[in-house]
Amino acid sequence: MWSVGRCYVQPVSGLQIFGVPGLPEIVEGTDLAASIVAAATAAGLALAKGDIVVVTSKIVSKAEGRTIELADVEPSAFAIEWSATWDKDPSVIEVVLREAKRIVRQSGPVLITETHHGFVCANSGVDQSSSGAHGRLVLLPTDPDASARRLRAGLAALGIDAAVIISDTFGRAWREGQTDIAIGIAGMHPIRSYIGQFDPHGHEFKVQAVCLADELAGAAELVKGNISRVPVGVIRGCEWEIDDTATIAPVLRDQSRDLFR
Amino acid sequence: MWSVGRCYVQPVSGLQIFGVPGLPEIVEGTDLAASIVAAATAAGLALAKGDIVVVTSKIVSKAEGRTIELADVEPSAFAIEWSATWDKDPSVIEVVLREAKRIVRQSGPVLITETHHGFVCANSGVDQSSSGAHGRLVLLPTDPDASARRLRAGLAALGIDAAVIISDTFGRAWREGQTDIAIGIAGMHPIRSYIGQFDPHGHEFKVQAVCLADELAGAAELVKGNISRVPVGVIRGCEWEIDDTATIAPVLRDQSRDLFR
Repeated sequence: MWSVGRCYVQPVSGLQIFGVPGLPEIVEGTDLAASIVAAATAAGLALAKGDIVVVTSKIVSKAEGRTIELADVEPSAFAIEWSATWDKDPSVIEVVLREAKRIVRQSGPVLITETHHGFVCANSGVDQSSSGAHGRLVLLPTDPDASARRLRAGLAALGIDAAVIISDTFGRAWREGQTDIAIGIAGMHPIRSYIGQFDPHGHEFKVQAVCLADELAGAAELVKGNISRVPVGVIRGCEWEIDDTATIAPVLRDQSRDLFR
Repeated sequence: MWSVGRCYVQPVSGLQIFGVPGLPEIVEGTDLAASIVAAATAAGLALAKGDIVVVTSKIVSKAEGRTIELADVEPSAFAIEWSATWDKDPSVIEVVLREAKRIVRQSGPVLITETHHGFVCANSGVDQSSSGAHGRLVLLPTDPDASARRLRAGLAALGIDAAVIISDTFGRAWREGQTDIAIGIAGMHPIRSYIGQFDPHGHEFKVQAVCLADELAGAAELVKGNISRVPVGVIRGCEWEIDDTATIAPVLRDQSRDLFR
């Protein structure tokens, strides 16, 4: 067993990643921790100490009531005009704009925004695809770190000491295809830094810091999928040190350091 | 078992990911396929049909002789001037510039380039960190897809039908921390498209396509690491359809579609 920064990995025994099937339809007020534990247990996949539980943000938002009825939205003149140009629903665009701190790129029908949380993504992360009704949008959780902390506390209350990552599916600059990344975290630091450590040849790492949280979120996507109803993935075998002050903030590059905003 | 696009995943049994320890120091001419199979077998982790073998580009480059002695490099006037401003080694900068098709951002000491392959990354992916000698740089493989195909063929010759991903550690726009992503692939398509399929609520996916190759590369990084000498990760349990025409090209966003170049 070898140790790097906050994460202790056993390369030989390796990681296991499994989806948690059989979750009920999530509605406002659903107890996510209890639902996940029950579904995992029913599937013969009892959660265990040290697991990293990766939860798709959509079910977190639904449980927290972060949805909005399109009929209740009054679009601004700007939203109406832009939507007409690109054949979009002006109420959807209005919600996208409300969820944005600013527009990063607006090109043709594509709207890349920075959300109030500081995430740069398409359409402020607003999701039309599976809100349970076509007239309802699912927004990102208001405070995904707080969501993750609540879920971690809920799991702890059921006897399970697990780290929690809230994930979402984002596009990237330069590369086609989306990947799942972390938008909230609880219990473990999101970044594993090599800075100041030495490689096998004695060369010091000056810049390298791995975004473990994003790699874990992407790995969990491999067992989740959008079409089957498997919104929770569990990663077992990646040991981590408890850090109850952890947030996703270290992953969000400050605008002053960003060359692409 | 459920099926999406090209990838058949079994959520309940899940994925296993393990590193391949005990590889020898890789030098020009090393038979990577034979070395990986021997090391995996010696570690009690025999490779099997259907495995996805993720190999850090650095060892591919070393095996292919894609290294350069700094003493052999004659820096241009531009490289000399810019290096003096930012306290860099002009020979390193010269190599970075030679490996670039163009400079995407040049801000302070940071140099984001587009490589001849079309990858957008820091310093054209040129690696000083563990070349085996401080006076030697490791460059990205000339054609990572061809490297992956050769490795896949080498594994097949040893009786193992595996997909191969060549990975590297890249930074991203907007987010701190690097992640491992795919720069070459063989045997499986890098993207899993949901477009035209329907979610559980009957809503059609219009844009979603997951970059499976990048998620697999990032997942493998979780068992590799930069400090221990574990440059190969194996992902087992993610079934894939054989596609021997696959390349990384569909992942590289064309400049005409890119908003951040």
